[in-house]
Amino acid sequence: MQKSLSVYDSDGSTFAPLVVIELALETKEEAIAWLLNRVRDKQQYGGAELLVEQLTPGAQGTEKVNPNVYVVGASWQRLLYGAEDVGLFKEFNDGSMRGFTYANKHNFKEFQGDGDGFLSMAECQYIIKHELDNLRAKDEAHVPGYPKMKLYPGKSVIRRMQSKGILVQVFPLHEKEELKRLSFSWYKNIKLSFQPLDDIRHYFGEGMALYFGFLEYFTLALIPMALIGIPYYLFDWEDYDKFTVFAGFNLVWCTVILELWKRLSASLAYGWGTLSRKKAFEEPRPGFHGVLGVNPVTGRAEPLYSNAKRQLRIYLVSIPFVLLCLYLSLYVMMIYFDMEGWALMIHDEEPTFWTGVLLFIPSIIYAVVIEIMNLIYRYAAEFLTGWENHRLKSTFQNHLVLKVLVFNFFNCFASLFYIAFVMQDMVLLRQSLATLLITSQILNQIMEAFLPYWLQRRRNKKAHKRMIKTMGDKELPLSEQVKLEADMSTYLGTFDDYLELFLLFGYVSLFSCVYPLAAVLVVLNNVTEVYSDAFKMCTVFKRPFSEPAANIGVWQLAFEAMSVIAVVTNCALIGMSPQVKSYFPESETQLILWVVGFEHFLLASKFILTFVIPDVPKHIQIKLSRLEFESLEALKKRKMLEASGIPKTDK
Amino acid sequence: MQKSLSVYDSDGSTFAPLVVIELALETKEEAIAWLLNRVRDKQQYGGAELLVEQLTPGAQGTEKVNPNVYVVGASWQRLLYGAEDVGLFKEFNDGSMRGFTYANKHNFKEFQGDGDGFLSMAECQYIIKHELDNLRAKDEAHVPGYPKMKLYPGKSVIRRMQSKGILVQVFPLHEKEELKRLSFSWYKNIKLSFQPLDDIRHYFGEGMALYFGFLEYFTLALIPMALIGIPYYLFDWEDYDKFTVFAGFNLVWCTVILELWKRLSASLAYGWGTLSRKKAFEEPRPGFHGVLGVNPVTGRAEPLYSNAKRQLRIYLVSIPFVLLCLYLSLYVMMIYFDMEGWALMIHDEEPTFWTGVLLFIPSIIYAVVIEIMNLIYRYAAEFLTGWENHRLKSTFQNHLVLKVLVFNFFNCFASLFYIAFVMQDMVLLRQSLATLLITSQILNQIMEAFLPYWLQRRRNKKAHKRMIKTMGDKELPLSEQVKLEADMSTYLGTFDDYLELFLLFGYVSLFSCVYPLAAVLVVLNNVTEVYSDAFKMCTVFKRPFSEPAANIGVWQLAFEAMSVIAVVTNCALIGMSPQVKSYFPESETQLILWVVGFEHFLLASKFILTFVIPDVPKHIQIKLSRLEFESLEALKKRKMLEASGIPKTDK
Repeated sequence: MQKSLSVYDSDGSTFAPLVVIELALETKEEAIAWLLNRVRDKQQYGGAELLVEQLTPGAQGTEKVNPNVYVVGASWQRLLYGAEDVGLFKEFNDGSMRGFTYANKHNFKEFQGDGDGFLSMAECQYIIKHELDNLRAKDEAHVPGYPKMKLYPGKSVIRRMQSKGILVQVFPLHEKEELKRLSFSWYKNIKLSFQPLDDIRHYFGEGMALYFGFLEYFTLALIPMALIGIPYYLFDWEDYDKFTVFAGFNLVWCTVILELWKRLSASLAYGWGTLSRKKAFEEPRPGFHGVLGVNPVTGRAEPLYSNAKRQLRIYLVSIPFVLLCLYLSLYVMMIYFDMEGWALMIHDEEPTFWTGVLLFIPSIIYAVVIEIMNLIYRYAAEFLTGWENHRLKSTFQNHLVLKVLVFNFFNCFASLFYIAFVMQDMVLLRQSLATLLITSQILNQIMEAFLPYWLQRRRNKKAHKRMIKTMGDKELPLSEQVKLEADMSTYLGTFDDYLELFLLFGYVSLFSCVYPLAAVLVVLNNVTEVYSDAFKMCTVFKRPFSEPAANIGVWQLAFEAMSVIAVVTNCALIGMSPQVKSYFPESETQLILWVVGFEHFLLASKFILTFVIPDVPKHIQIKLSRLEFESLEALKKRKMLEASGIPKTDK
Repeated sequence: MQKSLSVYDSDGSTFAPLVVIELALETKEEAIAWLLNRVRDKQQYGGAELLVEQLTPGAQGTEKVNPNVYVVGASWQRLLYGAEDVGLFKEFNDGSMRGFTYANKHNFKEFQGDGDGFLSMAECQYIIKHELDNLRAKDEAHVPGYPKMKLYPGKSVIRRMQSKGILVQVFPLHEKEELKRLSFSWYKNIKLSFQPLDDIRHYFGEGMALYFGFLEYFTLALIPMALIGIPYYLFDWEDYDKFTVFAGFNLVWCTVILELWKRLSASLAYGWGTLSRKKAFEEPRPGFHGVLGVNPVTGRAEPLYSNAKRQLRIYLVSIPFVLLCLYLSLYVMMIYFDMEGWALMIHDEEPTFWTGVLLFIPSIIYAVVIEIMNLIYRYAAEFLTGWENHRLKSTFQNHLVLKVLVFNFFNCFASLFYIAFVMQDMVLLRQSLATLLITSQILNQIMEAFLPYWLQRRRNKKAHKRMIKTMGDKELPLSEQVKLEADMSTYLGTFDDYLELFLLFGYVSLFSCVYPLAAVLVVLNNVTEVYSDAFKMCTVFKRPFSEPAANIGVWQLAFEAMSVIAVVTNCALIGMSPQVKSYFPESETQLILWVVGFEHFLLASKFILTFVIPDVPKHIQIKLSRLEFESLEALKKRKMLEASGIPKTDK
């Protein structure tokens, strides 16, 4: 834990600040006092029993600053109880992972003394967030001072204040020393090594670590493809009927790596204690609204929204809208083909160097347009999914992912499918693929890392300058650090990062047999992606709250769906190659039947393979069953003791 | 519970006999005494704490009878504790299903007085079986009197004695009164009504009730098919290119019914308390052998067998054997086609009535041969799966099901596929289908119900006669009932019954568009099947121990795999119909591409549909989540109380 920064509690003792709460500038005094009181109150009275103090503004604060910034911390005991509350898994003395309990604390491997240092800072912050989110209204009818800000028993206070805008933000603090060490071992020190996944998990949580783990795994898995692709590219540039072998390899490759990733991610998640962790009951997400009713599961008062209405919105508005967007995307694609034809015409009429360059222009424009359309659609999808009014964050997320995936897939690959299967022009396919891939990579890197960094720099320039002037190399005071971090952009989750990987996976698995250099380009992109993502996480964004995750969730499904589509596409490409066609000189029907048969065989093998390879490695399965068995035995023993205490001859 | 029969316990009180243990005739006295002692011993000393008495042979016992027959029962208290042990779910006062606990017993809906009648007889028998199976060796090195019958601490005594042949059988007793009522409402009283599934479950357990539920559901689901099929059969006998509509209907039908069954079976299982019941840790199955080692999960001494060896046996012996059998089956099929050709030749040369009959002979012979091959293969597969030495009964079962399914599928359908897609002879296909279907149904009914019944009758003729002579209409004494039931055949589980349904489902979903009467035949067969199965369960077989089951297990998967194959087959049949062919007069390639595209679209929709339709109905999902939520809340409350008792200011 950070020792350098500390805050004086109201009773004079110090505590380490972990999380920052920023209230709106004009928040009424009574609301603030009420909130702080609730946060500090003992748990048996329904409080969160946390430590919270107002941030003393920095000494050199000349400009107008928001005084309503509070730092939250907790005693070690409180955090340990909280760890039990959220169901944290930790390594036990015997090397297995077990749910932490306060009573049993001394039997956990890294528990020493009074438990200082047992929980990582990210875990402490996660616990505090959980406790704050679970701060519920008792009998207050509204937030004091705001008669319109209705509350009902059981409503999360923090969520209500957030949705009404009094609470500007809640975010965890960075730890400068740890961040420095992490960023050094992660990306500053350029050498050939794996990423420090455990350290990333320690600092940013399991969700983030799994993303970086997947990114790394995906890159490594692409290296064989890239190595095979280079000689193909160098020696067979025009002899593109040899790609059948490559397509076959492609098929095996994308099935196997996805299965192996499941096992690897299970291993990682077991070691991080998230594999067998039980999901807590999910609260309605902040944006959810409805008529106040009684939740049939919890029996608590809660807004309810009819499922039928939601279904109507999905089927009558969202789906037609998505279809309309797909049509629009097709329309843009046809325009691109017109431009392409026009450029080709000019080049054919009078070929010069400049008309040669002109041939690439339509593809580049199209790639840029695709990225812009994806971006606009993303906002529309987010709005629409919000409007569908899903109760849970996870359902919201799934519907959003589905909407965005379908459109992005269509938008990025429709033209390639058209070229491959309607125009059957392999030279054009290769050229389009290369342009799309390279352009979208360049755009992505700019949009994702350099643009936010540049904006951030510009914003903080003054602050930086002033600080360096006054402080030199000295430590920043807490108030300055909080101010600096509060102004950083908020990291919106791994969605866009996974989406990018998904599209890259598509380029490689669907068409790389036509353009074997695709894998090489994706490997290069991924290597820079690791660095730029690491850089943006450490310096551009606010620290995100850690998200416990046992797997990459809906993305596993998306990647598997893509690999099924890849089987179909690759089989079709194989069937279209002159090499295979030459085996069936008379009958095209025979050729197609063979290819279809082969494709069905591959799909069946794929499903059998998915079924046969266990998702969790054997040694972890054994550990999991042992835990389950032990808890069953303990229960049985307890029951037997209870039973033997009761006289049984009372017949 | 049965009041009519009772046995005097050693201390003079009576108890209701539930389960019979039969030891071999020549079992040594000391082994018997030891076993009975262990069964009677208190639980804290490692006994089963059950009541057990030797059966007093009937007064008229003139022939030589085995005296080593024991009846087992238990006090109500013991059974209630046992119900908690096995994790029985019962209806709570608030209408939800909850895990039964002795401490909470008065809050369960049907608990009255001292709990007599709360558990059904089947449940009591299941509990007793569970307690007997869990009777474990303590420090005995072998069964007393049998130095070669090794025991080690933790070894199930009953299983060892069973595998060594001292224990002949353990079976639950029938309850004549209840059985009479059940059989009357089930099959004796011919009227149009659903089966009394709850009563079946009450008497035979959940596994059996789910089988009959599925049989009924499947029959009802077939009725629309049958209704559509009849006019097709009557009016379009020769116009078999109209079957495309029928094939389309077929596709939708088989996807939808399987999805709906999942929901229905979840509803049934919830009501029976098996849906959320946790699986206990699985013990090695009786036939499993290996070198004594330590189980990594339980830490108990247990035979271990290397997984690598098992894999070798599977891949080097079992799979080649199965492939060989498939080849053999193909060979037999080719012989059948030779016979078919020969019969056709004779008929064409000089057509008479008798040569017309001759045309059907090869199909009938082939159908009989298929049934015989299936039967022989079944034994081989059982032997082979036993030899693979699987540790768990469930894995054993899965490997056996897989082996048998693949062969039976191949054996039954290969000739039909050959006729449909290689010979493309729809008339022959229809004729073969009809012959196969009818012959196999007749054979099945004979093999399954009438043969055992006839054998049984013959065996019991003497006994019956004698009894009727001496007793008239009076109740049978217990000893006679036990003797009668001990001689009945043992019911070997629902495997063969499901297999039969699976093959019938195959006939209907794969080819019924060619022979629309198939659905009608299957409906007729299923109706008689309900009666013959009900009859055989009630009168032919020993009562089986009830098997708690939440779904039809691996069969759901098998039926779904079949429905996927049905999509492919039906699309191919559609593509081959003259009607569809006439849409593409010039290009066969175009036709195939369209059909393949359509098939891919159907397969994709099928998977999406499976994914979109929730497997558990909403109202049951809510009940399940409520239970989970309540247990989480209770845990939290308990922890909070504990925590508030501990001073927290000890920093």
